[in-house]
Amino acid sequence: MSAGWFRRRFLPGGPLPAPRPPRPRASPVPYRRPRFLRGSGSGPGTADAPRRPDARPVRSPARGRALPWNAGYAEIINAEKSEFNEDQAACGQLCIRRCEFGAEEDQEWLALCSEEILTGHYWALFDGHGGPAAAILAANTLHSCLRRQLEAVVEGVVAARPPMHLSGHCVCASDPQFVEEKGIRAEDLVIGALESAFQECDEVIGRELEASGQVGGCTALVAVSLQGKLYVANAGDSRAILVRKDEVRPLSSEFTPETERQRIQQLAFVYPELLAGEFTRLEFPRRLKGDDLGQKVLFRDHHMRGWSYKCVEKSDLKYPLIHGQGRQARLLGTLAVSRGLGDHQLRVLDTNIQLKPFLLSVPQVTVLDVDQLELQEEDVVVMATDGLWDVLSNEQVAQLVRSFLPGNREDPHRFSELAQMLIHSTQGKDDGPTEGQVSYDDISVFVIPLHNQGQRSDGH
Amino acid sequence: MSAGWFRRRFLPGGPLPAPRPPRPRASPVPYRRPRFLRGSGSGPGTADAPRRPDARPVRSPARGRALPWNAGYAEIINAEKSEFNEDQAACGQLCIRRCEFGAEEDQEWLALCSEEILTGHYWALFDGHGGPAAAILAANTLHSCLRRQLEAVVEGVVAARPPMHLSGHCVCASDPQFVEEKGIRAEDLVIGALESAFQECDEVIGRELEASGQVGGCTALVAVSLQGKLYVANAGDSRAILVRKDEVRPLSSEFTPETERQRIQQLAFVYPELLAGEFTRLEFPRRLKGDDLGQKVLFRDHHMRGWSYKCVEKSDLKYPLIHGQGRQARLLGTLAVSRGLGDHQLRVLDTNIQLKPFLLSVPQVTVLDVDQLELQEEDVVVMATDGLWDVLSNEQVAQLVRSFLPGNREDPHRFSELAQMLIHSTQGKDDGPTEGQVSYDDISVFVIPLHNQGQRSDGH
Repeated sequence: MSAGWFRRRFLPGGPLPAPRPPRPRASPVPYRRPRFLRGSGSGPGTADAPRRPDARPVRSPARGRALPWNAGYAEIINAEKSEFNEDQAACGQLCIRRCEFGAEEDQEWLALCSEEILTGHYWALFDGHGGPAAAILAANTLHSCLRRQLEAVVEGVVAARPPMHLSGHCVCASDPQFVEEKGIRAEDLVIGALESAFQECDEVIGRELEASGQVGGCTALVAVSLQGKLYVANAGDSRAILVRKDEVRPLSSEFTPETERQRIQQLAFVYPELLAGEFTRLEFPRRLKGDDLGQKVLFRDHHMRGWSYKCVEKSDLKYPLIHGQGRQARLLGTLAVSRGLGDHQLRVLDTNIQLKPFLLSVPQVTVLDVDQLELQEEDVVVMATDGLWDVLSNEQVAQLVRSFLPGNREDPHRFSELAQMLIHSTQGKDDGPTEGQVSYDDISVFVIPLHNQGQRSDGH
Repeated sequence: MSAGWFRRRFLPGGPLPAPRPPRPRASPVPYRRPRFLRGSGSGPGTADAPRRPDARPVRSPARGRALPWNAGYAEIINAEKSEFNEDQAACGQLCIRRCEFGAEEDQEWLALCSEEILTGHYWALFDGHGGPAAAILAANTLHSCLRRQLEAVVEGVVAARPPMHLSGHCVCASDPQFVEEKGIRAEDLVIGALESAFQECDEVIGRELEASGQVGGCTALVAVSLQGKLYVANAGDSRAILVRKDEVRPLSSEFTPETERQRIQQLAFVYPELLAGEFTRLEFPRRLKGDDLGQKVLFRDHHMRGWSYKCVEKSDLKYPLIHGQGRQARLLGTLAVSRGLGDHQLRVLDTNIQLKPFLLSVPQVTVLDVDQLELQEEDVVVMATDGLWDVLSNEQVAQLVRSFLPGNREDPHRFSELAQMLIHSTQGKDDGPTEGQVSYDDISVFVIPLHNQGQRSDGH
């Protein structure tokens, strides 16, 4: 990605760059050693590199060019469970201008009015399903949506406290007091911008997939550093954690049919027609059979966090809305995640039952106040798609981070090496903490060092 | 309440004891020194006492009879902001029988088959609004609903792990494995029973209020000790906290229009007709005025945890679905809580707009594993209605607990005295941590000592 990548203005409704069609892999073997597609393959921080399924393994870290926020490194792996790499990534600088100076691109203005610009950094992982199309679109689009949403509110973001009116002009003398009572801070505008950007990106993907006759969806995990804070927005089952010497802190939660059971059951309760009489809303420990009829079995409904017993009726024998356990849990027998982008056309096999009504594109956003941390040199954020977390726990990743970084302080590429080592740990090597556990999923990892980066370095 | 209070079987649809009509207070002054209505007024643990608005202040603790779980004390205060005490309380033993031995009352069987009985203890606070009727009904009813719900699943509760089939007969050989995979424990059945009991009680209250031409609603906070665990179920804005020497742990969350904003806005988004064109679903920092038209103002919608700006349209000038801040926040300009029992007939003043669709009767249940705590003599749970927490923070209550209990170890009534002292602290005395803050609300407090009570003492 060139430095100007985020500066191309996204025009709603306008044409997006066509996604590059991924090339078929060379041989049809069911499993091969994974190929590493380094995010820094053609220069660190490039967003294009992860989208090159034809790239050769690049083991030696690229050198010379600055990654965003000093050194954020990505390792992308295609495990080749699917024909193409369904994982996609993007990272780069995020340059936010003030809107009032005009909506059109104006490079000259950018140079002249640099004090009006808020600068942040952006990292994103997209884990596709049903093909790579949605993930590629998301990697091409979401940063533009976010930039646009942030530019729409940037005056509030750079104010000590967001004003009631974006003009800054008070209609009511007690406006600041109301804003203070509600506890509205600049970071709430960034959270709102992330929420709106995900929704906007989802709409764009829906239009683009329909127009191009493609299908698919993807999860999205985004980290944005802005004004001394790190925002982590997650829709799906990727994960980000903070690893420090004495602390492992989750920065995101996973959204799956299991974790969002009550929301999904509630929707089916309100709109039973969404199940078309083919599924039961209720959860049972296992799929019921004819023998269960008339028995009292464990169940739970949308309003219950606990369990109870019910007498099995014939309608309870239908396929459950959410079925399976852990990694095997599926929504309508089809999808393993409950939030993400795309999937506008996804239907249950051989039916007209849509999944999209049950999916949310809005992310959950957590805020890490980096300025408030007493950072050590080895404090990092690890972002990865679910393939890593299937095999490694947060604590295991933290142990690997803590055992790797101190001994490699002189290596300028140690964060990249660490990301690669984390992926290696999922590939069934005898050493390491996984004790033979192997991931056959595509895996992408960002390792983002925090040290000396907490200070507000934004150029506004 | 006599010891047999919980043994009267609740018959669904059958007649409930008519609530005692509260007597009008003696004089119409707007505020008087509060009257203490001790839960132990006619003997500790009686549930009737709190419902006696005519009781004289009783300052000396009642003696001689054992309170449930050794010594749970209640202090009930009527601040007389309303004509009658809208706070109600109940506490007592909870005796759970096995259903299979017959649904009818059988005292002889109870005596003969005591090993079949699971015994727990129950404390409940109900904070009424729109009159005391719903709170009185809840204090008369909820324990019966809970007992019935627990009896329906008691075989699963006393099993090492709840069986897939309540009969214990496996239809499928892998049933136990499925239950284990889902992680279903006995405590999940108790949680489910609490959730169902609240809903059942809400239905009973709806029928009873309609039949008797009464109105009103109430919050409900319930603590149940069973099998070495303390279950805290909350629907409303009362609060329970655990206070230990080095720890203050919230055991409940408050449910108000503010804390449940997204759920309530989401419902109005799905069913806009619930607002009858009279309210706006959106949240703004203050009520908008004509001058705001066309301005970009701070707002948020159902999908947003953050804030953004929108251009004000005419429809945004309507009264907000949720309006006000903190203690002043109201749902549809009417109600300060978003969960509770009753309110089936409640409508926005001078309209036909119902509030009930926005209210949930289902509680949030938290579980405290008392057996796993290394309990000290001064470890207690404090349950209180919102009047206490308006004036005292969790930490302030903990400080009062820690400063009071160690110096009163010899006093057999110290928990009762402590509850009374906590209420005194809200009445504007010069000393104490409240620094002049005063509560004008009805206040009820339970102080439940945990020491030496964690062991399973249930007689099953």
